[in-house]
Amino acid sequence: MKVVRIKVLRLNCMLIFSIFNAMTYCLAIQLNQGLVFASDTRTNAGADYISSYRKMHIFTPSDDRLLVILSAGNLATTQEVLDRVQRDITTPGVESLSTVNHLFEAATYLGRVSVDVQQRHAQALQQSGVNGEVSMILGGQIRGEAEGICLIYPQGNYIMASVETPYLQIGESKYGKPMLDRVINNRLSLEGGARLALISLDATIRSNVSVGPPFDLAIYPANSFHLSRQERFEFDSPYYVSLRQSWQNGLSNAFLGLPRFDWE
Amino acid sequence: MKVVRIKVLRLNCMLIFSIFNAMTYCLAIQLNQGLVFASDTRTNAGADYISSYRKMHIFTPSDDRLLVILSAGNLATTQEVLDRVQRDITTPGVESLSTVNHLFEAATYLGRVSVDVQQRHAQALQQSGVNGEVSMILGGQIRGEAEGICLIYPQGNYIMASVETPYLQIGESKYGKPMLDRVINNRLSLEGGARLALISLDATIRSNVSVGPPFDLAIYPANSFHLSRQERFEFDSPYYVSLRQSWQNGLSNAFLGLPRFDWE
Repeated sequence: MKVVRIKVLRLNCMLIFSIFNAMTYCLAIQLNQGLVFASDTRTNAGADYISSYRKMHIFTPSDDRLLVILSAGNLATTQEVLDRVQRDITTPGVESLSTVNHLFEAATYLGRVSVDVQQRHAQALQQSGVNGEVSMILGGQIRGEAEGICLIYPQGNYIMASVETPYLQIGESKYGKPMLDRVINNRLSLEGGARLALISLDATIRSNVSVGPPFDLAIYPANSFHLSRQERFEFDSPYYVSLRQSWQNGLSNAFLGLPRFDWE
Repeated sequence: MKVVRIKVLRLNCMLIFSIFNAMTYCLAIQLNQGLVFASDTRTNAGADYISSYRKMHIFTPSDDRLLVILSAGNLATTQEVLDRVQRDITTPGVESLSTVNHLFEAATYLGRVSVDVQQRHAQALQQSGVNGEVSMILGGQIRGEAEGICLIYPQGNYIMASVETPYLQIGESKYGKPMLDRVINNRLSLEGGARLALISLDATIRSNVSVGPPFDLAIYPANSFHLSRQERFEFDSPYYVSLRQSWQNGLSNAFLGLPRFDWE
C-alpha cells in the first residue's frame, strides 16, 4: 500500500512538471528602424500551480549576429531545446546558431532541434496525455543580411514576418491582436513599437489569467548587433502603472466620444 | 465510374451543408436598465463557402414574456433546434417557451432540445468528422421575475450572467473581450451598452475573417416585454461607418498620448 502511494505521488509530481506550460503570450514586431520583442513570464501546470519563467532568450555567439528566441508551450521541451542550442554553440563541427549564415537557416536549425526533442519524449508524453509542443519566435540579424523575425511552428517549419504583416505572436494571441491590427505600421518608432507591445500584453492579462507580468521587453536597432534596451516591467513598475492608467483613460474617453444613435 | 462520381459529388454537397458553421460572434449584456443583444451574420463551411444567416431569433409566444436566442455552432443543428422550439410553442401539452415559468426553465428546455438534436445526428456527423455542437445565449424576461441572460452549453447546461460578470459571449469571443472588460459596468445606458457591443463586434471582424457584418442589434428595456430597438447594421451603414471612424481616431489619440519611456 505504501509503495502504491509513493508511486502515485511520484506520478503526480512528474505530471506537474511535464505539463508545466508556458501559456504565455509573446510577440515580436518588425519596424523600419529595427525589432521589438516582448514576452510575459507566467508559467502554469493547471490553475493552481502558477510560476514565473523567463521566455525571452538572447544569443550573441559572435560579434556578427544577435538572435532572440521567444518560446511558448511545454516548459520541459523549451528548456531542453535551449540547452541543446547552447551546447551546439560550444561544440565544434556541428550546426549551431554560430555556424548558420542566414536567419532562415537559424530557423530551420531551431525547428529541427525542437522536433527532435519533442519526438524523443513523444511516446511518454502521449501516454500521460501531455502536449510536448513548443512554438517559438526567432528574431535578430546576421551580418550580411537584413534583420528579421520568424515564427517556428511545433512541426519545425517557419514563417517570416513581412511588410504587410510586421508582427508575429505565439501563445494566447487573440486578446492582444485587435490593438496591433489597428495601430501597427512599419514607420512606428522602436519605442512606439515597444509601447504597442506592452499594450497588447496588458490587454491579454486583463482577459486571461494564464498570462501575467513581469514582462520582458527588448529593443534591437537595425544593424547595431546589440540590444539598445532590455527591460523588465513588474505589475507595479512606475512606467507600466502610468502606461496602464493613460491607456485606460484614453479608451474611456474614446468610448464616451462615440457618436450617438440617431434615435438618442 | 459515373456512379462513383455522382456519389462523391453528393457526399461533398452533404458535407458542405453539415459542416456549415456559424463561427460567429454573439454577445449579450445585462445592464441595470435592461438587456442588449448583438450578433454577426457570417456563416461558413470552410474559407471558400461563406454565406450570411441571421443568428438572432426573437420569441414572444405570449404577452408575459419576451425571449431572444443567439446561436453559434453547427447551422443544421441550430435550425432544427429553432424549428422544434417553434413547433413546441404551437403544440398543446408539451413543454415550450410558452409553458415555462422561469428563465432558467427556458434555458434547461432549450438545452434539452439542443442535446436531443445533436444526439440524433451524432453518429452520422462523427463518421464525417463534423462537429454538430451548438452554443446559445438565451435572454429576456418572463413576467414575475427579473430579466436575465444565460449561456447554454452544447452539453445542455447553462450559466447565468451576474452583477460581476454582466455579459456573455459565444463563438469567436476573445478578440472582442478586452474592450468589454475595460468599459463594462452595470450603470451604462442601454445605448451605451449597444455601442460597446458594436465595438466588440468590430474588434472581432478586424482580426478574424470568419466573423462579419451585417450585425444584428436588439435592445430590451427592463419590464417592457418588447424590444425598444431592433437594428441591422451593414458594413457601410452610416452609423456604423461613423462609429468605426470615431473609435479608430480615439484609439490612435490614446496611443499617441501614452507616456514616453524615461530614456526617450
